[in-house]
Amino acid sequence: MPRNRQNEGAILRKIADRFPSPQGPAFRRSIALGVGDDAALFRPKPRHQAILTCDWFLEGTHFLRAKHPPDAVGWKCLARAVSDVAAMGGTPCCFLLSLALPETHTGRWLELFLKGLHRASGKFQCALAGGDTTLQDEILINVTVVGEVPTGLAVPRSGAREGDLIYVSGTLGEAELGLQMLRRAKSFPSKRHPLLKKHLYPEPRLELGRWLARKKIATAMMDLSDGLSSDLAKLCAASGVGALLDQDHLPAVFVPRSFGRRVDESRQLALHGGDDYELLFTAPPGKLPSWPWKFKKLPVCPMGVITSGSQVVYFESGKPLILPPRGWDPFRKRG
Amino acid sequence: MPRNRQNEGAILRKIADRFPSPQGPAFRRSIALGVGDDAALFRPKPRHQAILTCDWFLEGTHFLRAKHPPDAVGWKCLARAVSDVAAMGGTPCCFLLSLALPETHTGRWLELFLKGLHRASGKFQCALAGGDTTLQDEILINVTVVGEVPTGLAVPRSGAREGDLIYVSGTLGEAELGLQMLRRAKSFPSKRHPLLKKHLYPEPRLELGRWLARKKIATAMMDLSDGLSSDLAKLCAASGVGALLDQDHLPAVFVPRSFGRRVDESRQLALHGGDDYELLFTAPPGKLPSWPWKFKKLPVCPMGVITSGSQVVYFESGKPLILPPRGWDPFRKRG
Repeated sequence: MPRNRQNEGAILRKIADRFPSPQGPAFRRSIALGVGDDAALFRPKPRHQAILTCDWFLEGTHFLRAKHPPDAVGWKCLARAVSDVAAMGGTPCCFLLSLALPETHTGRWLELFLKGLHRASGKFQCALAGGDTTLQDEILINVTVVGEVPTGLAVPRSGAREGDLIYVSGTLGEAELGLQMLRRAKSFPSKRHPLLKKHLYPEPRLELGRWLARKKIATAMMDLSDGLSSDLAKLCAASGVGALLDQDHLPAVFVPRSFGRRVDESRQLALHGGDDYELLFTAPPGKLPSWPWKFKKLPVCPMGVITSGSQVVYFESGKPLILPPRGWDPFRKRG
Repeated sequence: MPRNRQNEGAILRKIADRFPSPQGPAFRRSIALGVGDDAALFRPKPRHQAILTCDWFLEGTHFLRAKHPPDAVGWKCLARAVSDVAAMGGTPCCFLLSLALPETHTGRWLELFLKGLHRASGKFQCALAGGDTTLQDEILINVTVVGEVPTGLAVPRSGAREGDLIYVSGTLGEAELGLQMLRRAKSFPSKRHPLLKKHLYPEPRLELGRWLARKKIATAMMDLSDGLSSDLAKLCAASGVGALLDQDHLPAVFVPRSFGRRVDESRQLALHGGDDYELLFTAPPGKLPSWPWKFKKLPVCPMGVITSGSQVVYFESGKPLILPPRGWDPFRKRG
């Protein structure tokens, strides 16, 4: 399709048109040189550290070309990486976009993709600072986000201690159910459906993460990207501890009857469903309510306790089971 | 091949084994939290800015699975991104590795890849700080490098002024000739051949870049990755200037007789060959010798002058020609 054939300069102009620099207060303060040079320059605020994180977002693995709207691909590739900054208790500042596209996708698809990316960039106050583009048969995206956090206040995965309560924000399994909805739909379902919205346009929990870090409440924190069973196992391994979870306290997604699934579907989705981008964190008892509460309208739920063991034990109908990590792992087929 | 089937945790352990943290003085000083958390923490030295850059390195586009040794893939994916830091006049500090691999390549291939990457990491004093891994049919690599530079001393592409002399380090076209050698070889040629070494294991010109920045000599600088004709056009566009080049001053690769090519092959390689990772920079007259000189054994060659025009004019046998940007552009077939 010759009308879509564009050289690299034209792609970069399209990006620059959508992201006229500088954007946002963080950009003006911290970024001295953005898109169009060999590299970008950045300086965290005084008494702050920079947070560095990167995330793949690959066609076939993380999204489907035929099923996912391009603006949702743009939003989500940034939201996923920003969620890692939320999980450290930080504030996003800028990002680098690495984009590989088929020639056929350098026209309308690219414009819609950039529209979604730009909307996310504005919402998270995270400015485009640079990147790399190339041609490839498949759509490949890698996003590096740079954030900042007051020195010494970043919350690692490794700080959970025996007796800490385990909390999670939001409702678990929603994004996975949204994906199932998208996969089985013959025509494209409404993007406004809450389940689909959670899957397509996740909202990193930046405010909650920052509050937990600045108040020095959370002892360990991470974002839920692969699913609770896999991610809690990672937090426990990093902290050298175990965990006890109770099925009755899991804030599990409500599965509509129209899905016609088994009764335990809801809990399975909450335990193993990926892509929720909620915050999983631990806090010493007494620091936070030991019942479900809200942080600025966002539900936060205590659902277990850290133990001195090394395994995640899950109470199902009063019986303890060892919870296998069955969330998303690209290197392992689902169990 | 079940013996190669590994889950993501096993891949990460292999990476962690090869890169036991912390490594190097920059790492200990600047990186508070590395591999294994949601993100890494970094702080540039006082009165320094962080340099941020990222680079694709994709099978089929940037290297060939069947032709390029895995350790060279490891070395080069980091060297390319570090070269962008050299081009700003900075010092590399740490990098994030995004790696997507086929299941068949998580064994021996990964080990050799990590060996080359580790060697480059030590040589450039650039420590692994984090990343992301996933499974994919093709080998996909994206590297983000974070460096630092004294505030205000980074050299952009946009500072070239009329009358500035145009300089380049090293010899141009060597890497392209090395690639041709590799492509046409039936068995694998010796990695020690200087042309092949330049193609497989490029050396970013960190010392020269730093010297030019700290002495405030260079007015504009970039690294040559796509080829002189394309890259000089970018530098001129960023600076709003034109350039005059003379064929007699081009430090062009010597093409051995065994290649049996046309006489002008050498200059074509120097003008349009990619992957040299030499530094292209401009300096006001009188600041540096106006004849070929050496910086710590590295040849540096004046080869033209910046003009008030907007085009790159090339004198060939005394006749001025407008030089088309015919270097590497993945979005355009070669002219």
